[in-house]
Amino acid sequence: MEKPAERFTLAHGSGGEFTNQLLETEVFSILGNEYLRKKHDGAVFELSGRLAFTTDSYVVSPLFFPGGNIGDLAVNGTVNDLAMCGAKARYLSLSFILEEGFSKEEFHVILLAIRKAADAAGVLVVTGDTKVVERGKGDKIFINTSGVGQVHHQAFIDAENIRAGDRILISGPLASHGMAIMSVREGLEFESQIQSDTASVHAEVLALLDAFGADIHFLRDPTRGGVATVLNEIARQTNLGMALEEHQIPLHEQVQSACEMLGLDPLYVANEGIFMAWVKGEVSEQVLQKLQAILPSEQQAALIGTVVTEHPGQVVMLTGIGGRRVVAMPSGEQLPRIC
Amino acid sequence: MEKPAERFTLAHGSGGEFTNQLLETEVFSILGNEYLRKKHDGAVFELSGRLAFTTDSYVVSPLFFPGGNIGDLAVNGTVNDLAMCGAKARYLSLSFILEEGFSKEEFHVILLAIRKAADAAGVLVVTGDTKVVERGKGDKIFINTSGVGQVHHQAFIDAENIRAGDRILISGPLASHGMAIMSVREGLEFESQIQSDTASVHAEVLALLDAFGADIHFLRDPTRGGVATVLNEIARQTNLGMALEEHQIPLHEQVQSACEMLGLDPLYVANEGIFMAWVKGEVSEQVLQKLQAILPSEQQAALIGTVVTEHPGQVVMLTGIGGRRVVAMPSGEQLPRIC
Repeated sequence: MEKPAERFTLAHGSGGEFTNQLLETEVFSILGNEYLRKKHDGAVFELSGRLAFTTDSYVVSPLFFPGGNIGDLAVNGTVNDLAMCGAKARYLSLSFILEEGFSKEEFHVILLAIRKAADAAGVLVVTGDTKVVERGKGDKIFINTSGVGQVHHQAFIDAENIRAGDRILISGPLASHGMAIMSVREGLEFESQIQSDTASVHAEVLALLDAFGADIHFLRDPTRGGVATVLNEIARQTNLGMALEEHQIPLHEQVQSACEMLGLDPLYVANEGIFMAWVKGEVSEQVLQKLQAILPSEQQAALIGTVVTEHPGQVVMLTGIGGRRVVAMPSGEQLPRIC
Repeated sequence: MEKPAERFTLAHGSGGEFTNQLLETEVFSILGNEYLRKKHDGAVFELSGRLAFTTDSYVVSPLFFPGGNIGDLAVNGTVNDLAMCGAKARYLSLSFILEEGFSKEEFHVILLAIRKAADAAGVLVVTGDTKVVERGKGDKIFINTSGVGQVHHQAFIDAENIRAGDRILISGPLASHGMAIMSVREGLEFESQIQSDTASVHAEVLALLDAFGADIHFLRDPTRGGVATVLNEIARQTNLGMALEEHQIPLHEQVQSACEMLGLDPLYVANEGIFMAWVKGEVSEQVLQKLQAILPSEQQAALIGTVVTEHPGQVVMLTGIGGRRVVAMPSGEQLPRIC
């Protein structure tokens, strides 16, 4: 007879014996390190200089998708947010909100993914928290990851540094994460499975900062809302125009087909393993070459546009056939709970 | 005609126009500072030396209770977790998981409480995140606060420093937070309303560290699971015994009555504005006097017990009539979603 699946109960969030058991048998055995094993209210470490600090709560649905799960998504997302500040992630916190009845087996798989992603990014989970809410008051598992990183000594990442003439670089093809999630939700079968691009990008970012320092003016990862949302935010914030060249935008063929099938514009679809850089025009080709030299060949890094003084506050796409269209800020929710 | 109550929709979590509006009109207008206004993926600041880092997700139900709401609870909780590391909180992150349909008016009141508590503790909210989940997949609002603090130069807070002969200090009366929550849940009317003790305790902690430095061996705030759970954890971790004196334990009369009415042991009930310190025996009376001199008179700080070599790993209560009973680690969940 099969053992019944073990599930979380409210007692696992009590702070008492069940919480302790959960920490000892699962969390510490997978993620344990000298900081976590202190089991204190926080972690203490030495760091000096310019630090970056970020937070994100992950509510992605489904929890498991081609290419990853909520666990590595949460770690990579926070490592990447720190990278966008020009920082190398050093220490992460991890906070779970579990729904009563959530499967311990799924939790275990998620923890393994967290460990693997943290190891890959060279970051330690040093402090955490676990809460359990009643059935129907949550959705299996929500994860918050916050992180502290050390800013690269040559990093001066600030939207205020963006100038007309800057080129806009993207490190890889668009929309893979969002379309991987959608393919599961919609039960779609494509010719080959679309994988989420979830991955940490700090190594590439730090290599560019090593080589080009302050000529990297600004960094952002186009997650929720995609490339179009980031560009619109930056156009507004800088009161400059963003001119995109449609034929330069990297896109996997199957992602494009999937977007067409579902009527989605890949510019608005979430990514979890690429970044955008605003780079001084004069060095932009060198930056691209450097990035292409680091990245696996299929990554297709590209210069997709230019910062201009025309159409301030707006994003304009130059289409392949010589046309122009405004790429608007999305108003509503295209794909809820994508991350 | 009354304006219909404004409520959150999934679009507020999209990262697009609605998210922007929410940030501009609510979050930034209440919490805004130079860091948040950068609207970047993280905040960058300078800090050097020993730092403390902590995280907590708050799922308290109800959101509003006598003495506070989930907003100040979240800020104070994270400030206090840092204080328990011997640190002064400097920078907080704030991450919301909102349920579709949650009232914007309630959100506004919560934000005001966050601002007030942050100001009182001298801490800045520098980075954040907002997600929205579908109706029935969350419970109005969950808040994660993570925090970074600077460790006091004289703080050496570590359970390994606890020795037999240390006295156990508590900074105020037990069980107020838990009983304030329970009074709302159970619709109880007491002679006078029981208020949650939610408050930051860093000022008191830092004053003790100023005066007594490394003679403050260890600190913990008895939140979920209360004083009994903390003592059991520390007894196990140190493999020493914790001997409590029942008549020394401070307890408001009305809290005691309420506990009796509901059959709850105040030792297991959550607190949100007091802390416990393990203090070198020789200076313990001076530490108590110092704390009593700082705290408002009604706080009733007290030395409630001693670390002993007898009954290692166990907590034993010496009762008023000369008896002894073991204070066990709670196994299940006495009061779910108390914080």
